[in-house]
Amino acid sequence: MTKTNAGNFFEDFKVGQVLRHATPRTVTEGDAALYQALFGSRFSLQSSAEVARKAGYATAPIDDMLAFHIVFGKTVPDVSLNAVANLGYADCRFLRPVFPGDTLSTESKVIGLKENSNGETGVVYVRSTGRNQRDETVIDYVRWVMVRKRDKAAKAPEEDVPHLPAAVGAEHLVAPAGTSFKGFDTGASGSPHLWDDYEVGEKIDHADGITIEEAEHMMATRLYQNTAKVHFNQYTEGKGRFGRRLIYGGHVISLARALSFNGLSNAVLVAAINGGRHVAPCFGGDTVFAWTEVLDKAELKGRSDIGALRLRTFATKDRPCADFPGVKEKGYEEGVILDLDYWALIPRR
Amino acid sequence: MTKTNAGNFFEDFKVGQVLRHATPRTVTEGDAALYQALFGSRFSLQSSAEVARKAGYATAPIDDMLAFHIVFGKTVPDVSLNAVANLGYADCRFLRPVFPGDTLSTESKVIGLKENSNGETGVVYVRSTGRNQRDETVIDYVRWVMVRKRDKAAKAPEEDVPHLPAAVGAEHLVAPAGTSFKGFDTGASGSPHLWDDYEVGEKIDHADGITIEEAEHMMATRLYQNTAKVHFNQYTEGKGRFGRRLIYGGHVISLARALSFNGLSNAVLVAAINGGRHVAPCFGGDTVFAWTEVLDKAELKGRSDIGALRLRTFATKDRPCADFPGVKEKGYEEGVILDLDYWALIPRR
Amino acid sequence: MTKTNAGNFFEDFKVGQVLRHATPRTVTEGDAALYQALFGSRFSLQSSAEVARKAGYATAPIDDMLAFHIVFGKTVPDVSLNAVANLGYADCRFLRPVFPGDTLSTESKVIGLKENSNGETGVVYVRSTGRNQRDETVIDYVRWVMVRKRDKAAKAPEEDVPHLPAAVGAEHLVAPAGTSFKGFDTGASGSPHLWDDYEVGEKIDHADGITIEEAEHMMATRLYQNTAKVHFNQYTEGKGRFGRRLIYGGHVISLARALSFNGLSNAVLVAAINGGRHVAPCFGGDTVFAWTEVLDKAELKGRSDIGALRLRTFATKDRPCADFPGVKEKGYEEGVILDLDYWALIPRR
Repeated sequence: MTKTNAGNFFEDFKVGQVLRHATPRTVTEGDAALYQALFGSRFSLQSSAEVARKAGYATAPIDDMLAFHIVFGKTVPDVSLNAVANLGYADCRFLRPVFPGDTLSTESKVIGLKENSNGETGVVYVRSTGRNQRDETVIDYVRWVMVRKRDKAAKAPEEDVPHLPAAVGAEHLVAPAGTSFKGFDTGASGSPHLWDDYEVGEKIDHADGITIEEAEHMMATRLYQNTAKVHFNQYTEGKGRFGRRLIYGGHVISLARALSFNGLSNAVLVAAINGGRHVAPCFGGDTVFAWTEVLDKAELKGRSDIGALRLRTFATKDRPCADFPGVKEKGYEEGVILDLDYWALIPRR
Repeated sequence: MTKTNAGNFFEDFKVGQVLRHATPRTVTEGDAALYQALFGSRFSLQSSAEVARKAGYATAPIDDMLAFHIVFGKTVPDVSLNAVANLGYADCRFLRPVFPGDTLSTESKVIGLKENSNGETGVVYVRSTGRNQRDETVIDYVRWVMVRKRDKAAKAPEEDVPHLPAAVGAEHLVAPAGTSFKGFDTGASGSPHLWDDYEVGEKIDHADGITIEEAEHMMATRLYQNTAKVHFNQYTEGKGRFGRRLIYGGHVISLARALSFNGLSNAVLVAAINGGRHVAPCFGGDTVFAWTEVLDKAELKGRSDIGALRLRTFATKDRPCADFPGVKEKGYEEGVILDLDYWALIPRR
Repeated sequence: MTKTNAGNFFEDFKVGQVLRHATPRTVTEGDAALYQALFGSRFSLQSSAEVARKAGYATAPIDDMLAFHIVFGKTVPDVSLNAVANLGYADCRFLRPVFPGDTLSTESKVIGLKENSNGETGVVYVRSTGRNQRDETVIDYVRWVMVRKRDKAAKAPEEDVPHLPAAVGAEHLVAPAGTSFKGFDTGASGSPHLWDDYEVGEKIDHADGITIEEAEHMMATRLYQNTAKVHFNQYTEGKGRFGRRLIYGGHVISLARALSFNGLSNAVLVAAINGGRHVAPCFGGDTVFAWTEVLDKAELKGRSDIGALRLRTFATKDRPCADFPGVKEKGYEEGVILDLDYWALIPRR
């Protein structure tokens, strides 16, 4: 028997099956520095241990999206090594902060299966849970991917498509226990705008553009131990659909989030991802821009110090966002590569 | 009102105005490792906690230039986002070491203004001060930049050009309190040459050349949270003056300083930057070389263990420095990109 | 006298001479994060402090090859700055784990010299020893390099070629003291295969390919403070033999080792390198693949929890390894760039 892991194919998944993913990973200040160098984020809570301590944290927490990517990366060898496409995310919640020294592990439960009519692929739904060394859940989310069958003749499983919420209800959002953002230092963030100042429907251009280099997205994606072949192997991808390596969709999310500091400087935490679409592929050499629309505002139960903004962030490539390019009648406007719907937390007055 | 920060224009600055810059930043061993990977410095004091402890430090301090870049980076969104050119530095002093765990913040005071005769731009002089979490000044310097006016019709301010020293006087140099470099281990640095061995007028070729990749200078510049658009956005710069991204001038300074280990191995600290000119732009793919002339030597008040060398370091691109290319009758010799005048500290016999 | 170090030439070496190399280097979690980002390793012992603690370590040790590269890098300015070729390694043993906070220094002893008949070069054999801050040996190895003579007329030294073992005997392998891999968590590594499951002669394709970018290999090599000119200077190399920068051979070793996780997931430690050949040069843009043959198995004296596998890992460029390309009648099959013979340690049932 070969000892090489070829990943799971569609017929290897069963509803109810639990996959424990390799490898647990201790997150460090080194990871935070790399994330800083790769994305250039400036949110004060993650940038400054002093700001974090004033808010009641032991030290600066790891960027929420870095924690997400690490939790996500572990699922790739078991869930999506033979994926044709990442179809979506839903019901993703950030439940506890991650600090340097914490060790993250991920487990996934298969919650749905649906073979495609061509008999060659099927959709696998998993709920993945990232836990720390105390077995506390830090991140929990659903994703679904289209996976190849090993054998076209393999019998289709009973179709079982889970019901997923269109968005995480505000009542399910969690602000970290033991924290308080009363008197949050807006001088440290450089922006006076707090929860109270944002209006539903408001659009914010994040102004800057960042060009992605091959070395950057590969370093980021390896940092997360994400092994998806399309990101790393020019020899194979050079002969493939695009003729080049495809950038991990999460890389674009992290860039858009970092860019969003300009306009959302005090939105220091990601509380939930309601859904996300990678509308078009992104490649080395592309310049990424972003803008955000405020979809909703919500108070958090028991917290008068911090509130939630539901945000829809669009990222584009090679197209500035001053005119807010987004959806059009059918699909998306030219240049749009990401349509992300998420809840951020931001201090209140 | 838009929440996007468009940066200050010339008419937004007033002499005496104090700008508190976002975002405070906790420096870590992760930052030090990235700086190591990006520049390849080998100075023993920053490389080895053991060498640092023997000199009286609690642990290895952060490279002086890394601290400078972090302090500097914070000023960009407020001071130079709409700059046409960085014109100069002066009177930059390094007053206290920075250690992993320290949190750096920067504040700038506007100390001079001078509108240009074209009415479209003006020169802004700021004194920027980097402080740690104990509110101690670690770095203090003046820089002046040419900034665009938002509105050509805006009234010119009264011209007020500060008097700046041509160089930091040796009497203003500070060797870190509580340290002693007596019996400094030259075996650990690989070079026997100490303060006593350098002569004024001596020229040193640093020999090696390092090619800069786009990913490298962008990672470095984001590590400092420097948001100057010209370094990151190929989409826009591709249509601009050079057709490509411009490398942050500080990147060349750091490369030249790292290269200078070969010939100045024991010059472990930067005490002051007297001035610096970025003579020509530097781009991805350029190979940087450097050489140094010893301009002056000075004793430090109350310290017999360590002295100061005033150094003039030239960096070139795509031109080795064995023949010491520098100034010529008018301007600079072909290939010169940096003319830096600084004080380094180096142990004495 | 110039203060620039031009490196040693063949006639500068004497048998018995001891070279103390600059610069001691404190290894940190930042270095580990960079190594992670650059190579994407997934071995659980180095990835998770929790896994390491269960095995009796104080925390996650630094990757063995990262420690090796740091120990090796220090030797370059003194041993191989004027080398024409790295000819080989032998008798390399990993004797103690390295942890974040440890400071590594390297010393080399010249153990052999042999001038070449052309009178222009000679072979220098050195035994290099890496020690931590407690003066304990962590890595010890022999390498030999062909070095230029400064002066062709310089008298040849007496020929003195050391006897070197073809491989490190299993009786000389060391499993870290104070550790136990009993009940090693194969769920954390994602593979059930332990020492007992591997058979001599077994071949394992590591499946994935990773394309190397210029920024990546230069950042890695600077992280190790390795100053070999050929890796960094496109200006000079552009005019040289290959027209481009050459990638540090150790970079390929680290990539191959990281890739080997797929098939050797539980082979968490490198105990010895028996020998290695860099069969062909590797350049930016090349995609590296790897496969491994099990050459031998050995028990370790006094340890029933962990055993040794002698492995021969081949790396290729731009050639997948499903058909196990290796040696042919004369030399190597097309695409092979590395032939590495090493001992790994892997838990037993």
